[in-house]
Amino acid sequence: MPDHSQAPSEPVVTRSFPDSSVGLVTPETLHFDQPLALSCGRMLEQFDLVIETYGELNKSASNAVLICHALSGDHHAAGYHSEDDRKPGWWDSAIGPGKAIDTNQFYVVSLNNLGGCRGSTGPVSINPETGKPWGPDFPVVTVEDWVESHALLADRLGITQWAAIVGGSLGGMQVLEWTIRFPDRVRHAAVIASAPKLSAQNIAFNEVARQAIMSDPQFLEGRYLESETLPASGLGLARMVGHITYLSDDAMKAKFDRDRKVTDFQFDYGAEFQVESYLRYQGESFTKRFDANTYLLMTRALDYYDPASRHNHNLVEALANAKARFLVISFTTDWRFSPERSEEIVNALHTAGKDVSYLKVDAPQGHDAFLMDIPRYTNALSAWMNRVATESKEYTV
Amino acid sequence: MPDHSQAPSEPVVTRSFPDSSVGLVTPETLHFDQPLALSCGRMLEQFDLVIETYGELNKSASNAVLICHALSGDHHAAGYHSEDDRKPGWWDSAIGPGKAIDTNQFYVVSLNNLGGCRGSTGPVSINPETGKPWGPDFPVVTVEDWVESHALLADRLGITQWAAIVGGSLGGMQVLEWTIRFPDRVRHAAVIASAPKLSAQNIAFNEVARQAIMSDPQFLEGRYLESETLPASGLGLARMVGHITYLSDDAMKAKFDRDRKVTDFQFDYGAEFQVESYLRYQGESFTKRFDANTYLLMTRALDYYDPASRHNHNLVEALANAKARFLVISFTTDWRFSPERSEEIVNALHTAGKDVSYLKVDAPQGHDAFLMDIPRYTNALSAWMNRVATESKEYTV
Repeated sequence: MPDHSQAPSEPVVTRSFPDSSVGLVTPETLHFDQPLALSCGRMLEQFDLVIETYGELNKSASNAVLICHALSGDHHAAGYHSEDDRKPGWWDSAIGPGKAIDTNQFYVVSLNNLGGCRGSTGPVSINPETGKPWGPDFPVVTVEDWVESHALLADRLGITQWAAIVGGSLGGMQVLEWTIRFPDRVRHAAVIASAPKLSAQNIAFNEVARQAIMSDPQFLEGRYLESETLPASGLGLARMVGHITYLSDDAMKAKFDRDRKVTDFQFDYGAEFQVESYLRYQGESFTKRFDANTYLLMTRALDYYDPASRHNHNLVEALANAKARFLVISFTTDWRFSPERSEEIVNALHTAGKDVSYLKVDAPQGHDAFLMDIPRYTNALSAWMNRVATESKEYTV
Repeated sequence: MPDHSQAPSEPVVTRSFPDSSVGLVTPETLHFDQPLALSCGRMLEQFDLVIETYGELNKSASNAVLICHALSGDHHAAGYHSEDDRKPGWWDSAIGPGKAIDTNQFYVVSLNNLGGCRGSTGPVSINPETGKPWGPDFPVVTVEDWVESHALLADRLGITQWAAIVGGSLGGMQVLEWTIRFPDRVRHAAVIASAPKLSAQNIAFNEVARQAIMSDPQFLEGRYLESETLPASGLGLARMVGHITYLSDDAMKAKFDRDRKVTDFQFDYGAEFQVESYLRYQGESFTKRFDANTYLLMTRALDYYDPASRHNHNLVEALANAKARFLVISFTTDWRFSPERSEEIVNALHTAGKDVSYLKVDAPQGHDAFLMDIPRYTNALSAWMNRVATESKEYTV
């Protein structure tokens, strides 16, 4: 007769991540003591960049891939920060062992950009000169400034030339700028769901977001951290506006249509439609993880970026010295950066005689598609990255 | 030798309006003592409607045309309120002697809807029960409520049947509802740049506008008038968001592109791009002429309208009893209510066996096109209204 008097102790369950995941990752903070001259004319005397890396750098340092993040992204692109992390990094669908950006083949570097709010020096960091958060005194940085800081990061990591630089949306602009600014340091460039510059409508949406933030009385001219408050309603509104532009009309219809949370109309202004409730939730939860000054700064970097403006407003001229092989991807229902915007880049690259592959993916998800695991997209990125891997091996011979 | 000792007195210059203008017009306030049962279940015991009329009602009252206004419109559709009025009514391009809606042929009636803020009973009116402005206590009215109130207005004016009812955007929804609710009282119906119901994306933009207004600390839960204040920044933001959706991407590019007010970037968040400056101006000036509670109410009326929902979600069924001859017009670059949305109406009307003409106008102006004098549009509306006039004459025989 079995002895039931003592229950067996519970085994210690260690969470097992899928084989295709990079698993647990730990961000690393790199301090840079060399001053960085910024586009605005100011100098950043010293700064930190927070990075994550996945995979191993090979001996010849020829297999490094840089991931550039978009407006609200950060360094945490893949894997998990703890055993009980509910969500992986923002591009976990693409980065991992055997995935499109295969960490068995590549050394993948992902960073939080300067001005960000996830550890790299930015408005929430302490300004060494005042001992208080930088807040609104943090300089407005540009895509060009970011790429300069990326180059210093590459130097630090011993990477003379990236096998590939990959980015979507605002990240795609950084990729483009890399190929222009440091043509010898990028072998392959993937520009996804991006544009060579914002349209008036794009700027208009950014302006609404900024006005929402700046008109929030809790904004306190950007010094809210010093007063231990937050412009939560303004930042939430900014996110709501942004979110609408990330989704296609079709995607919203599929997700919410006119579905209601209540059976009968309430004849008031509560969240009666599911889409209202969703947007409110998106707005509120964003305010818990993002900084309002960083949001302002990121939207301004978007507004300002226009590489052609430095070359007689001629994008062909701007790209004349680029040496990378390009992959450009757009999504049919993306109305924030429509396929036509990607095609401006493709056409300029063709005219400039560059090596470019272009894929327009038929996808209903709108701009957000670039973050998703859509077979045609994932497969194309995967095939292209495989060629990058092959060429990178040839390169090391 | 002429006597110069006394300068001739200046002649009294009376401004001459163009021959095609209805000229000086005076709004009229009609008081209704009969109670109006509203969709929300509440009763409006008495109310005022402010109207303007242009042209003469013929003896058989067969030449009356009702104009239904959109979100921020009002009764002042044509002509001028004073000699030094800078701008005519909002649809002066279409209404006047010899114009598309020819006041030599038609008796045109334009009103400010219930819940409006230009004289008809609404949130800025005094609630007779409290002696204070209605504010947030004014009931949320619906397109159906408006059409019921229009019918009382028609009764008052002695109009048994409208020769035509014409409206754009939210106005088009009122036209549609008229044909469903009072099929015997509408001979012709023009539904312009409209939709049979809002999409999730449409509702989402309305929700952003409402959140902007309601999160403004000056909103005071809608009782700002009692405190002699205004939620100006929230209402301004709401208008900015709305305005972006009224213009096409192309129209914004043509109007502003990336043009700047400043030569060099300022690296701050001032209005550097023309489009930023324009939107700020649009937002600010709107707050001087519009009421925030009315804005909430108008957006909710838009959200709620869905005539098919009363008929098993079948628009064909909803329109089954309509007797009017329809004209439906859409504009190619309108992304607020795209041509596809107009085509939903057209297809349902066809299926229901109704008489419908459909015109998709190739126009770069976006949703705002419906307010503009675009030759193909104006000519088509003019030709259709001429047929309405001819049939109206036959009708009176």
